Amino acid sequence: MTNPENKTEVQNKGTIPTRVLPGFMELLPAEQIVFDRMKATIEEVYRTYGFVALDTPAIERAEVLLAKAGGETEKQIYHFTKGDNELALRFDLTVPLARYVSEHVNDLTFPFRRSHVAKVYRGERSQKGRYREFYQADIDIIGDGSLSLMNDAEIPSVIYEVFRRLNFGPFTIRINNRKMIAGLLESLEAGDMSIGVLQTIDKLEKVGEGEVHNLLTGLGVPDNVIRKIFEFISINGSTNEMLASLRALGIQNDLFRIGVDELEAVVQYLHVLGVPEECYAIDLTIARGLDYYTGTVYETVLRDHPELGSICSGGRYDNLAEKYTKRKLPGVGISIGLTRLFSQLKEIGLIETNVATSTKALVIPMVEDMAVPLAVATAIRKEGVATEVYFEDAKVKNKLAYANKKGIPFVVLVGEDEIAANTFAVKNMETGGQVMLAKEDIAAHIKETIK
Amino acid sequence: MTNPENKTEVQNKGTIPTRVLPGFMELLPAEQIVFDRMKATIEEVYRTYGFVALDTPAIERAEVLLAKAGGETEKQIYHFTKGDNELALRFDLTVPLARYVSEHVNDLTFPFRRSHVAKVYRGERSQKGRYREFYQADIDIIGDGSLSLMNDAEIPSVIYEVFRRLNFGPFTIRINNRKMIAGLLESLEAGDMSIGVLQTIDKLEKVGEGEVHNLLTGLGVPDNVIRKIFEFISINGSTNEMLASLRALGIQNDLFRIGVDELEAVVQYLHVLGVPEECYAIDLTIARGLDYYTGTVYETVLRDHPELGSICSGGRYDNLAEKYTKRKLPGVGISIGLTRLFSQLKEIGLIETNVATSTKALVIPMVEDMAVPLAVATAIRKEGVATEVYFEDAKVKNKLAYANKKGIPFVVLVGEDEIAANTFAVKNMETGGQVMLAKEDIAAHIKETIK
Repeated sequence: MTNPENKTEVQNKGTIPTRVLPGFMELLPAEQIVFDRMKATIEEVYRTYGFVALDTPAIERAEVLLAKAGGETEKQIYHFTKGDNELALRFDLTVPLARYVSEHVNDLTFPFRRSHVAKVYRGERSQKGRYREFYQADIDIIGDGSLSLMNDAEIPSVIYEVFRRLNFGPFTIRINNRKMIAGLLESLEAGDMSIGVLQTIDKLEKVGEGEVHNLLTGLGVPDNVIRKIFEFISINGSTNEMLASLRALGIQNDLFRIGVDELEAVVQYLHVLGVPEECYAIDLTIARGLDYYTGTVYETVLRDHPELGSICSGGRYDNLAEKYTKRKLPGVGISIGLTRLFSQLKEIGLIETNVATSTKALVIPMVEDMAVPLAVATAIRKEGVATEVYFEDAKVKNKLAYANKKGIPFVVLVGEDEIAANTFAVKNMETGGQVMLAKEDIAAHIKETIK
Repeated sequence: MTNPENKTEVQNKGTIPTRVLPGFMELLPAEQIVFDRMKATIEEVYRTYGFVALDTPAIERAEVLLAKAGGETEKQIYHFTKGDNELALRFDLTVPLARYVSEHVNDLTFPFRRSHVAKVYRGERSQKGRYREFYQADIDIIGDGSLSLMNDAEIPSVIYEVFRRLNFGPFTIRINNRKMIAGLLESLEAGDMSIGVLQTIDKLEKVGEGEVHNLLTGLGVPDNVIRKIFEFISINGSTNEMLASLRALGIQNDLFRIGVDELEAVVQYLHVLGVPEECYAIDLTIARGLDYYTGTVYETVLRDHPELGSICSGGRYDNLAEKYTKRKLPGVGISIGLTRLFSQLKEIGLIETNVATSTKALVIPMVEDMAVPLAVATAIRKEGVATEVYFEDAKVKNKLAYANKKGIPFVVLVGEDEIAANTFAVKNMETGGQVMLAKEDIAAHIKETIK
């Protein structure tokens, strides 16, 4: 795997540097297969929940992207001119979704459920773990005018199913609702500070309580409000205990009460959806930095690897596309930063990428005429088993070495004797065991053994 | 589907235009599903032949792309600067392959078989049927120093399997070998005209014999040579008859003889590989415009739709990456222009994109409490059947309309009675038939009926 750090580039071959650009991930075949499996697992879960996989251009009008990007993000956008067009590469999949839904609103069926797994681009300062081109794996459900809270409840079960299947160890889906802190502040007549406070609380895990206190003071939040904020975020215990404590705070504010009700509704259905209790928790400190979330928010952490931070995040928003349409389009969604996650998991050894191949059989001809080797390969492929024929002129030893290097689990030897007998030696490269089979029976043998 | 023509753009919604850029294809969900199935079929065939799916950055160093691009292509490149880097979007998948193989040559196992299905970018003048962002679906086999001709023979069987499965009607894989015409010209001491002559002959189908004659004269090709060229390309008949006629020409030139031998070897194995005779033909007029092909070349046409031109083309080249490495890397490969093909097939009505969905079941709750509807959906999904729950507040009629509009084939009704009986009404939306089933039996029923 190419490290994204900005190393000195070596032009060690031709006159043109072939090294992949810093900040871009490029994988070797065995790594790519593992990455693709991870991606396919996520896509399969998304599909099972009825999300249709969409695709939008990687290039958008610059004004479309700039309308939604602020601050840091804007500086990171790759933009350029071609002909009369001011163009830019998308920096996430949400802005293109907003543009897509606005454009095709009359042709879509709402609630509109779409998944999008694709590359996005951010010209960040090159540093470890930060990529300039990376995959995001998103789902969103968009309502036309309104969207049932039940969608918020279903999302964690999608997250659960994704990470259960990916099998990276124990994980927790942290759930919160931003209406609570917003309502709390409103009740203390500090409602205008809501976004600043949320963004500060979100840093709690990273910087600690003392620093959050300082930051809040710096924002001009009065001491009595800070005290209340800490009273709120200190609530702990089981899901039911926390919900009871939240109500016991006795905060007289509608927004706060709606927030607690929504949170309760979301967590109460997780059991029915088959999400085990250890896989989710209410966490009053998560807020997501982005200011467009308005209700439920999610983060997901690997319990044995909290240093990775959130590996799947998202939430509920009131209005997806206000910049592009007058239609009110509320939604809820999540995003997995696939490229970064893969790179982190590889670094901590949670995914093995030494030898992986999708090819299951290598036919090794030991004769000049390729007719029978090709017929054997064709018979195996017919059953859907990925098969190669080693055509090059080489010693049998080297042909076997090719299978070994690529991790191909079976080789099929085709020599004079085999052709005469019309049965072929199928060698299991792991056990060394060998059986003689008619060409029509080889695929079934391989499938059975691999299973 | 968004038409690539440059229509006047209408800002009919917000202040920012949401219409997809001219020359970019963007699909509605039902179309996208059909496109993705086509893509998945191609990927599956490639996988079955042992090609590993690679992924490289869409952005390359400008100098890497410019080293390989000439003339028209160079003008079409999207290039831009970010920080100190001169960057460009790839315009094909072959140049990135050359760069990749050069960079990772010591980590790859040769022959190196890779597939790559991804978007490429060309800022062409906007016109019907031309896209600025489009998918290519490529495979290549790269040898280290040498590569057996058997790989050239295997490629048409991959093409055959792809188009057999895609089922777009009868097709012909046209096969030629550029060494023949090069050898013929060499024997007439006109070897230096080889590339110009090849590019001219390639236009035969489009412009006709007379015009090819004029063009060749214009290139300064002597009359006697032109006569020989026409004698050569007029050869017709069955595969065996053509091979016999080619030998009967009696051309005393090694390159020519090698060309005929290679062509014969390639076609003789197609039968063994299961390619029916009507699906391939020797065609002495195809040459591929590109000058890097050096031996076998392929084109593929739909026999009922010759106006589409070649829908899958490629060939053998001597040296993939001479610009980037001193290693000699011969290869053979093909490419399918997926986006254009999809758009053409849709236009002539060969693919239907009215209603397609991957969702197979819609659970319709007729109760307030979502616990049972969610449990039913979870049970169906567990068996891999894509399922949605209709959460929104609406009349049952409207919920059924949602299923209809999205083409979801089954709905599962969950009302008080069903919950009491613990069996649920599973309605086939096509036949109107309905059965009562326990939640654990619904997925099997759906799978069975769809099959």
